[in-house]
Amino acid sequence: MENIDLSKYQLRTDLAIEEVEKSTLKQGFVTSEKVLNNIKITIVDVLENGIKLLNKKRGRYITIEFDDVTDTSNKEKVKKVFSDELRDLLSFTKISSDANCLIVGLGNDKSTPDALGPSVIDNIIVTKHLFDLGSVSEGYRSVSAISPGVMGQTGIETSELIFGIAKRVNPDFIIVIDALASSSLSRINRTIQMTDSGIHPGSGVGNARKEISQDQLKIPVIAIGIPTVVDAVTIVSDTILFMQKQMAYTKENLKNPIHKLVTPNMIDYTKESHDLTSDEKQHLMGIIGTLEDDEMKQLIYEVLSPIGYNLMVTPKEIDFLIEKLSDIIAGGINNALHRQNNLS
Amino acid sequence: MENIDLSKYQLRTDLAIEEVEKSTLKQGFVTSEKVLNNIKITIVDVLENGIKLLNKKRGRYITIEFDDVTDTSNKEKVKKVFSDELRDLLSFTKISSDANCLIVGLGNDKSTPDALGPSVIDNIIVTKHLFDLGSVSEGYRSVSAISPGVMGQTGIETSELIFGIAKRVNPDFIIVIDALASSSLSRINRTIQMTDSGIHPGSGVGNARKEISQDQLKIPVIAIGIPTVVDAVTIVSDTILFMQKQMAYTKENLKNPIHKLVTPNMIDYTKESHDLTSDEKQHLMGIIGTLEDDEMKQLIYEVLSPIGYNLMVTPKEIDFLIEKLSDIIAGGINNALHRQNNLS
Amino acid sequence: MENIDLSKYQLRTDLAIEEVEKSTLKQGFVTSEKVLNNIKITIVDVLENGIKLLNKKRGRYITIEFDDVTDTSNKEKVKKVFSDELRDLLSFTKISSDANCLIVGLGNDKSTPDALGPSVIDNIIVTKHLFDLGSVSEGYRSVSAISPGVMGQTGIETSELIFGIAKRVNPDFIIVIDALASSSLSRINRTIQMTDSGIHPGSGVGNARKEISQDQLKIPVIAIGIPTVVDAVTIVSDTILFMQKQMAYTKENLKNPIHKLVTPNMIDYTKESHDLTSDEKQHLMGIIGTLEDDEMKQLIYEVLSPIGYNLMVTPKEIDFLIEKLSDIIAGGINNALHRQNNLS
Amino acid sequence: MENIDLSKYQLRTDLAIEEVEKSTLKQGFVTSEKVLNNIKITIVDVLENGIKLLNKKRGRYITIEFDDVTDTSNKEKVKKVFSDELRDLLSFTKISSDANCLIVGLGNDKSTPDALGPSVIDNIIVTKHLFDLGSVSEGYRSVSAISPGVMGQTGIETSELIFGIAKRVNPDFIIVIDALASSSLSRINRTIQMTDSGIHPGSGVGNARKEISQDQLKIPVIAIGIPTVVDAVTIVSDTILFMQKQMAYTKENLKNPIHKLVTPNMIDYTKESHDLTSDEKQHLMGIIGTLEDDEMKQLIYEVLSPIGYNLMVTPKEIDFLIEKLSDIIAGGINNALHRQNNLS
Repeated sequence: MENIDLSKYQLRTDLAIEEVEKSTLKQGFVTSEKVLNNIKITIVDVLENGIKLLNKKRGRYITIEFDDVTDTSNKEKVKKVFSDELRDLLSFTKISSDANCLIVGLGNDKSTPDALGPSVIDNIIVTKHLFDLGSVSEGYRSVSAISPGVMGQTGIETSELIFGIAKRVNPDFIIVIDALASSSLSRINRTIQMTDSGIHPGSGVGNARKEISQDQLKIPVIAIGIPTVVDAVTIVSDTILFMQKQMAYTKENLKNPIHKLVTPNMIDYTKESHDLTSDEKQHLMGIIGTLEDDEMKQLIYEVLSPIGYNLMVTPKEIDFLIEKLSDIIAGGINNALHRQNNLS
Repeated sequence: MENIDLSKYQLRTDLAIEEVEKSTLKQGFVTSEKVLNNIKITIVDVLENGIKLLNKKRGRYITIEFDDVTDTSNKEKVKKVFSDELRDLLSFTKISSDANCLIVGLGNDKSTPDALGPSVIDNIIVTKHLFDLGSVSEGYRSVSAISPGVMGQTGIETSELIFGIAKRVNPDFIIVIDALASSSLSRINRTIQMTDSGIHPGSGVGNARKEISQDQLKIPVIAIGIPTVVDAVTIVSDTILFMQKQMAYTKENLKNPIHKLVTPNMIDYTKESHDLTSDEKQHLMGIIGTLEDDEMKQLIYEVLSPIGYNLMVTPKEIDFLIEKLSDIIAGGINNALHRQNNLS
Repeated sequence: MENIDLSKYQLRTDLAIEEVEKSTLKQGFVTSEKVLNNIKITIVDVLENGIKLLNKKRGRYITIEFDDVTDTSNKEKVKKVFSDELRDLLSFTKISSDANCLIVGLGNDKSTPDALGPSVIDNIIVTKHLFDLGSVSEGYRSVSAISPGVMGQTGIETSELIFGIAKRVNPDFIIVIDALASSSLSRINRTIQMTDSGIHPGSGVGNARKEISQDQLKIPVIAIGIPTVVDAVTIVSDTILFMQKQMAYTKENLKNPIHKLVTPNMIDYTKESHDLTSDEKQHLMGIIGTLEDDEMKQLIYEVLSPIGYNLMVTPKEIDFLIEKLSDIIAGGINNALHRQNNLS
Repeated sequence: MENIDLSKYQLRTDLAIEEVEKSTLKQGFVTSEKVLNNIKITIVDVLENGIKLLNKKRGRYITIEFDDVTDTSNKEKVKKVFSDELRDLLSFTKISSDANCLIVGLGNDKSTPDALGPSVIDNIIVTKHLFDLGSVSEGYRSVSAISPGVMGQTGIETSELIFGIAKRVNPDFIIVIDALASSSLSRINRTIQMTDSGIHPGSGVGNARKEISQDQLKIPVIAIGIPTVVDAVTIVSDTILFMQKQMAYTKENLKNPIHKLVTPNMIDYTKESHDLTSDEKQHLMGIIGTLEDDEMKQLIYEVLSPIGYNLMVTPKEIDFLIEKLSDIIAGGINNALHRQNNLS
């Protein structure tokens, strides 16, 4: 057995909303929610005292949660909501309507689940070169865009590339787009997060790289991300939690001898659900049932890692999803940045 | 709650070896194993009485299991073993060394985890047109190749396309390549199955389509597949099984009060492992711990399906893996079919 | 000097309109023209006695000529005109509005200028599988689609693949899409030809393959093509013809000693143009100036071929042009075949 | 007729060797030639007084001319020669064997004939990140690589991006790769130029952008390019020159009445060739025949430009050629930069 340090399963999430959800103290942040067209928008403001409590930087985090975007009508609704929220965030961040913008698409264009950033850049309307020539129509601002690649392709820390480019191109603010990791199966490809706190590229998948933020770059940095991958630990622990919830439907059965449970269908969805008591949990799942969420994940991690099965995975339809999602992000950005490009 | 028929979770596997492993009677087949260069080769012959017992057609199933193929040296070893085993299977099936071959790459070239077949076809050496012109060097046989696409692209049942083409092109035998589903996390992208029993395209992911086999086509059909996707049910049930095995290491702890377990590291890999007794299983995992393998999968399926989370997933490195795996299959086929194209 | 047969430069065109233009007898066909939105539509009906005179099969040939389709507004106009003309041609060919259609995209998806057919297929709405399931909305007909690849990829004569598939799939009519060669620089990527006479795949680039036509398949075959390549002979001979036309502007200069011509700008576009007399042609271009069009091409062919420079070329923007052109063809076909998919 | 400035056809070449060839004074440079394995290597050193005479910067220009690289054996020979010459040029430029290198692939990865640079970058072995981690094997130097895209994609002057990145990454020298334009049909896809004088991106296709050179960046800049496009003016003028040469074979005919020429085959390659006298030229080609090379190109430019036909074109096999050529350049660079990656 090789010597793996199993002492520190780090929750692989880039989403503030997931930190808020598992926060026990419920302190250090302010949230508000609304739902439009079946699309849920949650605004989390992380306060000074929330930085340590949530392990998130101070700033505004807007989360947009939605259903299947392979439905074209739903996709257009999500694009509209995203564009409106982005425009609001630009206002909130006091970015003026004619401020120059550099858009950075992080990720590897050769790896489908990591190609969100480059794919968005392919569909961004760039105008900086036209401004430089003095040939721009009313209603546009100066926008430039770049896909710097990943360190495995370039040999260069991505943040270094961005610092170098930003210093020379001198934008008023930066928008960075990246594929994220989620700690919840239900958010994969169904959530957009945007924040004025910048990002730590690759932090979601366990790499520590230098942050790209206003602290570093001295200009506002808006980060936009969509979780496209999830690790096996998350899939398993989510499922065990679902089990505990769904098992509530089997309340009567829980009193019965074990073999009574073992028939299709084990779960009776016509029954009322209830939160399991801790006795019920232990009856149902033994010692495992008594673990806290974090302990459960730690245990699953200790089981899967030594045998090499804590894979990061992505849905098999990822090619089609990236196409739809990058259309939403690029279209929404184009619309939010320029007055002349209104979504129909 | 919508009305989903949860009564029938079908194990999503295309691999005979997985049917053999979970077979309780251990009848209806003959197996043999060998290991070369850390590559494991298992030959399963499904007999007449095994057809029902294993839910597999009669025939020879060769499974090659290997480690990470992003290691170039290992990749070349796997290619050599695969090519040798394919040549053996052609002999076993009594296909002569100058028999004409049509190679069919099933799957969707626009969907990375499903693109194995088309990607292999891109690297096959075709010679039929040269034979038709009379301009072929010694040591080659007549080979043609096609990627017919998937029904969502063509609107046509793929087996219909193959029947139509085979009737006109008139090959002596057919090789069909496809991406498969596995019922085991450990086999994803690390297993090649080949068989003389043909295939049921899409059967691994829950679609019922017409089989492509000698029964239908009246010529030998060799099917070659690699599992590239796995469903969430499999990931969870595999993990719970792993837990039960690994937990054996915590034997002492199992006697202790629950809170003793809850420390990193919970599992003590220095302890001797043992198979848990059923009492230990129930202590550890409650009712869940007492379920049989099939019952466990059925339960997980009933939990995940109604909420739409029984995703089929693929590792996030799938683009790179498909590239390596199609190199193995195409190179191995080219080498096995032609005498002049020996692997170095 | 290698032994190349230079006796037979074959005009590399797939366009009936070009045969009509260079026809001297002006017999064996009937033409009509109209212009809509700056888009020119020419209908040529090749009659029985035109088959030999024009070296074209009997049938209707519709040519649509247009300007730059990277202009989105113009692209949509061309799509509308193409769709209307295709619907007219289906009527003319007596194809009923619920007849089943198989669409075949010829060409090599790995070679940009030859990828028109496969690229169109990627954007065709297929419905046959839905009809087979009985789940189709009002207003659609049964459509299937396939990209069979090219012989260099498959080893199989493409017409053989189509015959085999058509026999099994049994459509009421076939639409075949292909990239063509033109004998005129001005038509490259700016012309659509469609015809009810089927096609000879590859004939435009000098390969003789079996025809795909109603004679062979016993059902109507509509062929749609766009010229995307041109040979160097054509570029040079077109330019020499342009020179003769443009030089008309230099009429006065032609009387002058030679050195008078040699100043920028040699051509005075403020002068009236006129057709050069044959004396003027000889004065201007010597023996070359006295050659007929065919003789000129033969001579250029004899000059370029032995040194390997009669390249087939394509504009450097071909990637973007194929994208726009396949959008026109796929969108126009989808609209013409289904009542429910009206272009906005 | 729109108002096009026809006064200034600029020879569209990036190749020093073509400037040398058309130089009339034959001053300001020193050349040497050798031929290896049917591959011709020409070294041109542009001297101080050659800068104006040749319109080229001072420095060494190495041109490698070769035949068809779709022949694998020839491709490997070209790769070896290129790698050796590059190593020589690095020595000549006094770049030490452990100097850090940044490789820049110019061009648009979405446009096949312009994708040489990005395609090379995809195959470069990068090591800088490994050096930063201290985990590099003996025999490698620190190499980083980037494809910055083109201004139409990024909105940013490409030289600006490179300056910004170079300032931050701080390499000891830079290698820049780009697709070029040629003024000779015969060199398309069959010539590599490398130089220590840097480059003017896009200069070959008529765009004036800022240079990338040691003057600007204060470190050595090696530029490597392959001509992949040619304009119609070049094709036509090259052909007319070929005609004049080949027509020499028809010497006797030139005395004959015109109609005698017009038979296949017009050119009698069994005859001895000779350089045409100016009388013969005029007899053959009239006024056109008396023009100097530059005047001819100017005239053709004046003919083609107003009607929009001075296309930049590329051979129709460009996809396959770019693949082979980028393999040569990437493999040759990898081999020249690292001691451990010897070509077999």
